[in-house]
Amino acid sequence: MPVPAPVLYPPFNIVRLSHVEFGVTDLAASRAFYVDTLGLQVTYEDDESLYMRAMEERGHHCIALRKADKPEARVLGFKLYDTPDLDKAAAFFAAKGLPVEWVERPFMGRTLRTCDNFGIPLEFYVQMDRLPPIHQQYKLYNGVKALRIDHFNMFTSDVDASVAFYNEIGFRTTEYTEDEDSQKLWAAWMHRKGGVHDVAFTNGLGPRLHHTAFWVPTPLNIIELLDLMATTGYVANIERGPGRHGISNAFFLYILDPDGHRIEIYCSDYQTVDPDLEPIKWDLKDPQRQTLWGAPAPRSWFEHGSLFAGVDPVASAMTAQPIIAP
Amino acid sequence: MPVPAPVLYPPFNIVRLSHVEFGVTDLAASRAFYVDTLGLQVTYEDDESLYMRAMEERGHHCIALRKADKPEARVLGFKLYDTPDLDKAAAFFAAKGLPVEWVERPFMGRTLRTCDNFGIPLEFYVQMDRLPPIHQQYKLYNGVKALRIDHFNMFTSDVDASVAFYNEIGFRTTEYTEDEDSQKLWAAWMHRKGGVHDVAFTNGLGPRLHHTAFWVPTPLNIIELLDLMATTGYVANIERGPGRHGISNAFFLYILDPDGHRIEIYCSDYQTVDPDLEPIKWDLKDPQRQTLWGAPAPRSWFEHGSLFAGVDPVASAMTAQPIIAP
Amino acid sequence: MPVPAPVLYPPFNIVRLSHVEFGVTDLAASRAFYVDTLGLQVTYEDDESLYMRAMEERGHHCIALRKADKPEARVLGFKLYDTPDLDKAAAFFAAKGLPVEWVERPFMGRTLRTCDNFGIPLEFYVQMDRLPPIHQQYKLYNGVKALRIDHFNMFTSDVDASVAFYNEIGFRTTEYTEDEDSQKLWAAWMHRKGGVHDVAFTNGLGPRLHHTAFWVPTPLNIIELLDLMATTGYVANIERGPGRHGISNAFFLYILDPDGHRIEIYCSDYQTVDPDLEPIKWDLKDPQRQTLWGAPAPRSWFEHGSLFAGVDPVASAMTAQPIIAP
Amino acid sequence: MPVPAPVLYPPFNIVRLSHVEFGVTDLAASRAFYVDTLGLQVTYEDDESLYMRAMEERGHHCIALRKADKPEARVLGFKLYDTPDLDKAAAFFAAKGLPVEWVERPFMGRTLRTCDNFGIPLEFYVQMDRLPPIHQQYKLYNGVKALRIDHFNMFTSDVDASVAFYNEIGFRTTEYTEDEDSQKLWAAWMHRKGGVHDVAFTNGLGPRLHHTAFWVPTPLNIIELLDLMATTGYVANIERGPGRHGISNAFFLYILDPDGHRIEIYCSDYQTVDPDLEPIKWDLKDPQRQTLWGAPAPRSWFEHGSLFAGVDPVASAMTAQPIIAP
Repeated sequence: MPVPAPVLYPPFNIVRLSHVEFGVTDLAASRAFYVDTLGLQVTYEDDESLYMRAMEERGHHCIALRKADKPEARVLGFKLYDTPDLDKAAAFFAAKGLPVEWVERPFMGRTLRTCDNFGIPLEFYVQMDRLPPIHQQYKLYNGVKALRIDHFNMFTSDVDASVAFYNEIGFRTTEYTEDEDSQKLWAAWMHRKGGVHDVAFTNGLGPRLHHTAFWVPTPLNIIELLDLMATTGYVANIERGPGRHGISNAFFLYILDPDGHRIEIYCSDYQTVDPDLEPIKWDLKDPQRQTLWGAPAPRSWFEHGSLFAGVDPVASAMTAQPIIAP
Repeated sequence: MPVPAPVLYPPFNIVRLSHVEFGVTDLAASRAFYVDTLGLQVTYEDDESLYMRAMEERGHHCIALRKADKPEARVLGFKLYDTPDLDKAAAFFAAKGLPVEWVERPFMGRTLRTCDNFGIPLEFYVQMDRLPPIHQQYKLYNGVKALRIDHFNMFTSDVDASVAFYNEIGFRTTEYTEDEDSQKLWAAWMHRKGGVHDVAFTNGLGPRLHHTAFWVPTPLNIIELLDLMATTGYVANIERGPGRHGISNAFFLYILDPDGHRIEIYCSDYQTVDPDLEPIKWDLKDPQRQTLWGAPAPRSWFEHGSLFAGVDPVASAMTAQPIIAP
Repeated sequence: MPVPAPVLYPPFNIVRLSHVEFGVTDLAASRAFYVDTLGLQVTYEDDESLYMRAMEERGHHCIALRKADKPEARVLGFKLYDTPDLDKAAAFFAAKGLPVEWVERPFMGRTLRTCDNFGIPLEFYVQMDRLPPIHQQYKLYNGVKALRIDHFNMFTSDVDASVAFYNEIGFRTTEYTEDEDSQKLWAAWMHRKGGVHDVAFTNGLGPRLHHTAFWVPTPLNIIELLDLMATTGYVANIERGPGRHGISNAFFLYILDPDGHRIEIYCSDYQTVDPDLEPIKWDLKDPQRQTLWGAPAPRSWFEHGSLFAGVDPVASAMTAQPIIAP
Repeated sequence: MPVPAPVLYPPFNIVRLSHVEFGVTDLAASRAFYVDTLGLQVTYEDDESLYMRAMEERGHHCIALRKADKPEARVLGFKLYDTPDLDKAAAFFAAKGLPVEWVERPFMGRTLRTCDNFGIPLEFYVQMDRLPPIHQQYKLYNGVKALRIDHFNMFTSDVDASVAFYNEIGFRTTEYTEDEDSQKLWAAWMHRKGGVHDVAFTNGLGPRLHHTAFWVPTPLNIIELLDLMATTGYVANIERGPGRHGISNAFFLYILDPDGHRIEIYCSDYQTVDPDLEPIKWDLKDPQRQTLWGAPAPRSWFEHGSLFAGVDPVASAMTAQPIIAP
C-alpha cells in the first residue's frame, strides 16, 4: 500500500488549516464576490487589503486579500496547538533544510514562515486575534452562508512525495487514488481537524493551489448560491457542479473568483477522528471517484490553478524532482 | 408575438394530464427502476402489466407499463372535468378530421381515444378508480418520493402548429423560446392545472415523447435519488442534471428507464392559475433558458426520445407538414 | 355526511384568493416585520399605506397595510376569472340580500365590494396592475422567501353555515373536522386554486380572521425564519410551531405581526384540482388532526383573532345565527 | 469564572465518546425502534443482545442493547488514542480511589472498566472491531439516517464537581449555564472530538443518563423522522422538539425509546477544535438558552432520566456530596 502509516506522535501539533492569503488585482471586484455573493464577514479592510471570516469562526480571518499586480496565492496558514509547537515546527523545517523565518503578521501572534518540500509557502501560528461569536446573529447570514474554511487542495508533480512530507507532520490520509499500473499515488486527502481533509494533493503541474474550500451545512446552500451567481453576472464563474464526489462523499460546487482563484463550496463529508481510520482506496480508472453521479469534470478543472507567489511550477516540473528530497 | 392568446372558454374542460402508458421489454427491470428506485406505489400488477401511482395521487395510476417487443409510448392520458366534456371532446376531434374511438380501459370509466394534429395518441376520461389517500403513510415513502405526475414534453417538427392546436383546447402558454431570426417558436410550455406545464413542445424530429415528469417537494429528494442510482447500478441512466432550468425555474434531473424512456424529476416551479398570466419569452440565443447555471445539456438530450406506438416520425418529418392542418 | 357536494358550475368563477388589507397602528413597525423579516417586496408605499407582493406573484399586491387607530382586518380579496364574472357575482350577492357596491381601489380595475353571510368583508376583481416577474431575481430573496399568498382562515360561529355559503360559490371542501356527537362541522378547508385551501373556517367567536398564510418552498425556509426572528427581537411573536398539520399535511409556523395579526408560513400541502377529490374527514377527538406530531397548540391559538372592520363578533355570537340565513 | 481552564495535556488521550449499552425489557420492541424507525444498522444480534452502528461509523457498534428485567444504562464507552493511554487511564482512576477493572467485552480489545466521581460507569478501549464503510451504500439509508453517535448528557447533583472531573481528563467546556446568584454551574457542555460536546452535565437528581444523541446532516432528516414516528404508532414517544437550542446552536428532537431511554436527534452544531476556543456563557434566567425560538421544554424533560445500573441516585442526592471527592 502506497499510503504511509499515520504518524501518531508528530514532531509538532497542527490543529487545523487556518487561512489563505491571495493577491488580487481588483479589491472592489473581490469584495463583491467574497462578501456580497459568498457572504463572508469583513473583519478588517483598508485600501490595500480585505480580511474576512466565515460565520462560525472566532479567529480574526480565514481569508486575506491584498491588492497585487497579478493574481497569486501568497501563503497557506495553519494553527498550532500550543506555544512550544512553534519552536518544534521551526526545528523540524530547519532540519529539512527548508527556509525558516519569524514574521510579523497583522492580527496574529508569533508566526513562523516556511515552505513545504516543493516550495509551497506555509505559515504557522498559535494565537490569532479572537472575535466575539456571530454564528447566532442570523441577520448577518448572507449568500452561501459559509460556516468555516475547510481545506486546501494543491497540484503537485509528485503526490507520493507530498503525502510523505505531510504525513510526517501528522496529517493522516483518509482517501486516495492509486494508479494501479504504476502503483503511484494520483491524489490523496489528509486531515488534522477530524474531517476528510485539511489538505489534498492531486497530480499535475505543481506546486500550484488547486482550490480553497469553505464548508456549508446543506446542499441547499449551494443551490441558493448557484441561483444567486447565475442571476447577478457570475454565471461564467461557475466551473463545475453541483455534484457528489465519490472521494470524501462531499456535495460540491467549484467556482472561480474574479482573479481565477478557485473556491469550492463543500458539505456532507464525514468525521475522521479515529486514529485507526482505514484510508479508502480508489482506482484511477473508476470515474465515480470524482463524481459519484458520473458527470465528468471540465478540462479547466484539471489544468487551471493559482500560482504560489515566487514559486515557478515549470522549473519544478522540469527537474521532475522535489526541491527537497523527503 | 407568436404565442396565441389564451382561449378562456375552450370547447371542453381538461383538468390536468393524468397518465402515460409505456411499452417496456422487461417488466422486472422496469419494476426495479420505477418501484424500487423511484418509489412509485404499485396499484396493480400481473404478468403483462404494472400500474403505479405517486404518493399524493388518489386516481388509480399515473403510469402503466405493458410488456412489449420494443419500447414505445402508447398513449398520453388526460382527465376531463365532467361527463359532458367527453362528448364535447369527441365532437371537437371529429370536426378536426381526427380519429375518435370509445375504448375500454382497465380501472377507468368511459374513455375517448384520439390523437393530436401530429398523430400523438391521446385519451380522455372523467372517471378513474379512486384509491384511499396514502400521502400520510410515511412508511411507504421510498426512493425519490414522487408526489404526482407533472407533465409531458414532446418533440414536434412544428412547434407553432402544436401550440396552436393545444391552445385551442385550453392549454395556456406560460413560457416559450422564440427564434428571433425566423420569428418561429422553438419550444413552448403550456398548462391546464395551474403549474408551469401539463404539456411542452420542443423543436425536433417529431412526434416523439421527450420525457414524462414527476414532481417532488425539494431538491434534496433529487440529490437522494442521484446518490441511490449512483450506488445501485444506475449511474449510466443519469443523463442530465441536477440543475435549474431558466425556463420554468424548476430544479431538474433527467434519467432514463431501462428501455430508454426519459423521466424528469422536477420541483420548484410556480403557480400559474391567473388566466391573464403573461407568458415569459426567452431568446433561443440565451443559454440560461435551458440551464440557469450555464452547464450545457448533453447531445443525447436533444436527439433521443421515445417513439409513439404506430407513429412514424420520419415520415412526418419528410412531409415537413403537420398530419392534419390545424 | 355534513359536507355538501361540490358545485361544479358555480354562479361565477373565482380563480383564487388574492389579497388582504390590514389596518395597522405603526407602519414602520409593520414594514420591519413584513419587509425586513418576512422578505415581502414593496410595490408601493407612502405615509399612509404599504403594498407588497410575494416573490412569484405578478399581481400588484397580496397584502396592503393602512395606518389605523386600531388593528383590524379590512377586507379579503379574490380574483375572478373574466369580466362577466363580476356582474354575475354582484347578482349573486344581491339576490342573497347582501350589500353590493362598486368601489375604487388603487392598482385594481373594477371592484365589487360585498360581504359573506356572516358579514366578512369581501372584494372581487378581474384586473389588478401586473408587474414584471421577479422570481428569478435571486438577489431580492430575503427573510422567509415567501412565494405567494396561500389562504385565509376564519373563525365562524357556525361552520356548517359558512361552508354551505362558500360551497355555493364554488369552493370545494378538501378536509374537515366533524364532531361525531353533534354531527356538526368543527372546521373545514375549501379551495378554488388547486391547493388544500383558499379559505378555511374554524369554530369560535366569529366572524374574525384567524390567520393569513404565505407559501414557502421547504421547511428549511421556516427554520431560517425562526432563527432570524429569535435573534432580532421577535421571539415573542412566535406563537406556534414549527410542526406538521394532520389536516392538509402542511408544515407550518404561526407568528404574530406587531399588531397581533396572525400570519402562517406554510408548505407541503398537495394538489387538489380533481373535481371528484374526496374530502378527508377527521374526528374532533383525534389530536393528530391539528399536529401530526402530537404537540398541542397554545391557548392563544384558539382564542385570538383579528376583528374585521365594522363587524362585531359578540353581537353576531349573541344572536347565535348567521346574519343572513343561507 | 466558574469554568476551569482547559487542560491542554491531560493524563491520557480520549478521542471521542464511542458507545452506550442499555438494558432493555423487550428486544423486539427495541429493534423496531432503533433499526426500523431510526435506521441504525445491525452489526450483531442474538436472543440476548443487539449491536448497531450508524451510517458513517466503522467501529463495530455505537449502541448495544441487552435483554434485562428493567431499563437501565449500563455503561458509557470512550475510545482512547493509543495503547499506552489505557494504562495511563487506569493509573489515573486508581489514584482517584475509583474502581479499576480490565474486562472482556465482545467486539472490543483490551477494555478498562471504571466510573466517574459520582459513580457513572465508564469503559475505555483503543481497539474495536472495524467494519467496511457503508456510508456510500445509499440503499441502506433508512429512517432518520443517523450518521454517528454524538454525545451523552447526564444529570448530576453537582455540576461544578462533574465539570472539574471531566476537565481534568481533557474535556474542554464549550458552553455553560451559570446561576448568577449562586455563581454555581447549572449545566455545561464539554468536548474531545471537535464538536460542541461529547458529554454534557445538567443539574438534577444524579447521576442519571439524560439522553444519548445521534448526529444527522440536516433538519429535514428530523422532520422525516417525526412524520414517520407520528404515523407508525410512536407519536407518544415524541417528547420535545423540533427546535433550535440556544446553547450549541443545534437543531434538535428528543424522543423516547420503548423503555424510556431518551434519544436526541441532533444537527447543526459547530467545530470546536481550537484549544483556545472561549466557552460561551448563558444566564440561567435566559429562556432562549434552551430553545432559541422560545418554546419551553415539557416537565418530563427536566425530571425523567435513565438510571445507571447499580447506581442509586437518591442515596447520592441525600449525601449531597459526590461519592468520591475530586
